[in-house]
Amino acid sequence: MRTHHCNELRSSHIGETATLIGWVNTVRDQGGVIFVDLRDREGVTQCVFRPEESPEAAAASHKLRGEDVVQVTGKVSKRLEGTINEKLGTGEIELVATSLVVVNKADVLPFQLDKELSNEDLRMRYRYLDIRRPRITHNLRTRHRVTKSTRDFLDEQGFCEIETPILSKSTPEGARDFLVPSRLQPGSFYALPQAPQQYKQLLMVGGLEKYFQIAKCFRDEDLRADRQPEFTQIDIEASFVGQDDIIKLVEGLLGRVFKEARNTEIPASFDRITWREAMNTYGSDKPDRRFEMHITDLADVFANSTFKVFSGALQSGGTVKAINAKGFSNITTGQVEALTQIAVQAGAKGLAYIQVRGETVDTWRSPITKFLSPEEIEAMKAKLNIEPGDLILFGAGAWEPTCDILGRVRLACADYQKLLEGNEELNFLWVTEFPLLAFDEETGRYVAVHHPFTRPLKEDEEKLLNGELSTDLRAQAYDVVLNGTELGGGSIRIHEAPLQAAMFKALGISDETAAEEFGHILDAFRFGAPPHGGLALGLDRTVMLICGEQSIREVIAFPKNNKGSDLMSQSPAEVEAKQLRDLRIQTVKKPATGTPTPQA
Amino acid sequence: MRTHHCNELRSSHIGETATLIGWVNTVRDQGGVIFVDLRDREGVTQCVFRPEESPEAAAASHKLRGEDVVQVTGKVSKRLEGTINEKLGTGEIELVATSLVVVNKADVLPFQLDKELSNEDLRMRYRYLDIRRPRITHNLRTRHRVTKSTRDFLDEQGFCEIETPILSKSTPEGARDFLVPSRLQPGSFYALPQAPQQYKQLLMVGGLEKYFQIAKCFRDEDLRADRQPEFTQIDIEASFVGQDDIIKLVEGLLGRVFKEARNTEIPASFDRITWREAMNTYGSDKPDRRFEMHITDLADVFANSTFKVFSGALQSGGTVKAINAKGFSNITTGQVEALTQIAVQAGAKGLAYIQVRGETVDTWRSPITKFLSPEEIEAMKAKLNIEPGDLILFGAGAWEPTCDILGRVRLACADYQKLLEGNEELNFLWVTEFPLLAFDEETGRYVAVHHPFTRPLKEDEEKLLNGELSTDLRAQAYDVVLNGTELGGGSIRIHEAPLQAAMFKALGISDETAAEEFGHILDAFRFGAPPHGGLALGLDRTVMLICGEQSIREVIAFPKNNKGSDLMSQSPAEVEAKQLRDLRIQTVKKPATGTPTPQA
Repeated sequence: MRTHHCNELRSSHIGETATLIGWVNTVRDQGGVIFVDLRDREGVTQCVFRPEESPEAAAASHKLRGEDVVQVTGKVSKRLEGTINEKLGTGEIELVATSLVVVNKADVLPFQLDKELSNEDLRMRYRYLDIRRPRITHNLRTRHRVTKSTRDFLDEQGFCEIETPILSKSTPEGARDFLVPSRLQPGSFYALPQAPQQYKQLLMVGGLEKYFQIAKCFRDEDLRADRQPEFTQIDIEASFVGQDDIIKLVEGLLGRVFKEARNTEIPASFDRITWREAMNTYGSDKPDRRFEMHITDLADVFANSTFKVFSGALQSGGTVKAINAKGFSNITTGQVEALTQIAVQAGAKGLAYIQVRGETVDTWRSPITKFLSPEEIEAMKAKLNIEPGDLILFGAGAWEPTCDILGRVRLACADYQKLLEGNEELNFLWVTEFPLLAFDEETGRYVAVHHPFTRPLKEDEEKLLNGELSTDLRAQAYDVVLNGTELGGGSIRIHEAPLQAAMFKALGISDETAAEEFGHILDAFRFGAPPHGGLALGLDRTVMLICGEQSIREVIAFPKNNKGSDLMSQSPAEVEAKQLRDLRIQTVKKPATGTPTPQA
Repeated sequence: MRTHHCNELRSSHIGETATLIGWVNTVRDQGGVIFVDLRDREGVTQCVFRPEESPEAAAASHKLRGEDVVQVTGKVSKRLEGTINEKLGTGEIELVATSLVVVNKADVLPFQLDKELSNEDLRMRYRYLDIRRPRITHNLRTRHRVTKSTRDFLDEQGFCEIETPILSKSTPEGARDFLVPSRLQPGSFYALPQAPQQYKQLLMVGGLEKYFQIAKCFRDEDLRADRQPEFTQIDIEASFVGQDDIIKLVEGLLGRVFKEARNTEIPASFDRITWREAMNTYGSDKPDRRFEMHITDLADVFANSTFKVFSGALQSGGTVKAINAKGFSNITTGQVEALTQIAVQAGAKGLAYIQVRGETVDTWRSPITKFLSPEEIEAMKAKLNIEPGDLILFGAGAWEPTCDILGRVRLACADYQKLLEGNEELNFLWVTEFPLLAFDEETGRYVAVHHPFTRPLKEDEEKLLNGELSTDLRAQAYDVVLNGTELGGGSIRIHEAPLQAAMFKALGISDETAAEEFGHILDAFRFGAPPHGGLALGLDRTVMLICGEQSIREVIAFPKNNKGSDLMSQSPAEVEAKQLRDLRIQTVKKPATGTPTPQA
């Protein structure tokens, strides 16, 4: 139906006859001559309808409207001087039409495609039109390029893509599952997988050695922020490997993807810092290192302070830390309140600060300087490199929450200060040595930070085997971070029964419970499980960052809104009563507290 | 953990030191010297443990058992004369061990890996062990090669892989949907997609022009035969194309896939026959043409026969046809009965036959020859090329069922005669011009043979627009067939509102119903839908044929049994009451005829 696409004709084609097909992007009438920018997936070509070339085509062209689908045949001609468009690849030529076939007329669209639309509901209801915008088309094509590059790279490295089931089993741990009632086995349910974690480990037991999958995953969570109920991950697992092997593999993968999907060279290897260092320096397990504003420890300054908020925190085993937001002493009262709010929501009692307006303390604006001795002030000035114009923000309390609070405050300051405006850097980072165990105050038990199959660091293996438990035990678990966003993470797994038994014991999981919840994978580990480990990368987020978008919805063809609805197809929806009868389920109006009300 | 894999060391490596890691495939004790065949994903290497090389390794080797995971370091050595194994790539060498690390001991396996196991339940329960068999490993790796080749080819052709939702909308037509209750919108349900049909058409409206997806699809059907509740298809759609474009694309795709995944050259283009011709000649819309046994029309022979079974069928507008199963006159009585059963189950009243034992009719064994005139016998002999030793089988009645019955009988005869034993041919075929409409006797309405968006043949477009309906209207719908198995099919779609309206009218679908059931896609067609069409190939079946397997379960990593169960993970399963409360559903013991019994 075409001889060329709409971003193909150049000066070298002048004099040739060509046929294009596509959508009417714009129509202009210049003194009776109609100019149509014809658009297809690749770009735009200007078509001109002159009565002297073809009276019929010219007459018909007067009726054209935006988004009509038309086929135009004509002669490739040089544009007149002064009408050349250097921004367009086809900008030196135009197609002088000799025939026009209107393939399909279009009604007036519910919104214009050449303007940004803030009404997201309208965009999503007509997503098939929204996709016609070059930006969204480009995003979807970039997503394809990312997955294609991923597959090329992993295939070259000997990895096999293997599909694991979507109709899977509900697991007691982790997030809430989506359930699928079984008709053939009434009363039983499949669950949609939150990740193919157990399947991929079983494939390693199955001897496949190198597995990957671009896998759909599902979590039935409340959809605050930028979450989708279904999302996609690049899921990788390999046998006979250690942490360094996985890290190198993923560096190579990301290098290939950024090169091919974004035409960007990234470093061949990324910095690595331990989780403890990340928390201490950035107050985050996914630090944004595109700006400094490091967290500084002030324990030695305030160990014996008469300011009890600080010395008390230290004496009860906690910490006192601060950040210096250089040049931000002119923070507004509203911003101080907002930062305090952030700190309080993260668990702080308040947010001590100093607005450093001049060299001497008497020029400083702060609720706490009056409690500090001149020596403490001097020591602090040196440690934090305090200069006029700075803003100092403090945290005091238990180590981890204090780091976390200052980490959040740090990001908010950078945001207020617009430190990252126009910043094009891609800052990749590995965070390693995540803790193996966390202590759950509520249940008084240890829980697995990553999952119960995560391997401890070699140095901490003996402690786990001996039951010397603490949150200081470190795991062979690692995250890859880009510009403060976690792209993905993984771990080396436990593959031996005695170590796995010690891990379950540490988590307070009885032998019976372990057998019930993890029976098939524990079985599998008895029959020659190889050492193995892996990682998963969030595809949606990776593509979002590559495209420079702010939301993963912009890189998903048919996303759902924050109620989990697809406004285009109107799903989810009520179904016919017969469908529920077949499945032997019924809906209930309210959560079953007393006797539920049948609603079949 | 290794310097080489287990199918890598050759004579050229003799004298080098190498480290292998993998599973103990076999252990043999030959006069105190232990020989271990060490296996990994790539193959097997013989390791020898001689006390003189390393007393420790030799001592430890005595305790090895099948499927232990071990790491062996040693010197690559030439095997003794007479012990060379020419079947193995590594058969000229052995690794003389200097060290042995037992990485993970294995318990005794529930079944042996080197023997075929007929107990499928046991295989599936321990699928992770079953996967270690080289045959299953090979199948899964071949599946990866098929999907990789598919993606390479389609990417080179400009197609973009685009993910469409798994949490989708229930459609009133088609097979039964799997449902997913929505927690955020109680009483509403998602459905798992039976195919991404509407999404891919909407992507064409969205201007993406060339889409594909290796897509998971779901059908909640009773799982007779070789079906899976979830299956995978290679889903393709393109704009500005006709049937020939899709056919050429798929021929190129299959050529690439068979070359890369099976190292087989297949024809650059496949024969095409119309659906009518396929039915007339082979009695099937997916003919197996690796053997002849064509169906022959006998209408002119029996038009005026006194044998009313034949002439009556013809006079009431039906047909009389027969096949000649050459050389099968020695069919047993039991086989005749079985063939008759096949015919009767397909709707025949019986199955007339002639066992042609000699030249003359008196030697023939048949329940019907006594009713036929000598002229009819002679005409039939000529038409069917009847020779001594042949078996003739008849069908009489309405055209389509008669073709279908003889098609089934034809396949059964070929099976009995073992016509395809040892046949390695790959016989590809396009079947085109499927009927647009079928008449549903039950509802007295026409229904769409493919789906309501399928485009009629150009020649039949006017008839549809004018409401001249019949089952003779042909569609631009096509199937690709390999050796009597449908690999896939597709159609060119309707893209204009008036033709779509005529189609809905033909199907007795009111404007209101159309709006309700297909609202968003009808909306989409108003805004500049391009001409488009596509096809879907069954991936499981394609891989099965490439691997020479008899069941798709052999090419799926974790298949379900015919009750829809995954015996390994024990899914589907009962879930916690809280999960159902959260979803505001409850199970009912029996289909709700009276008041249902709550079972939350």
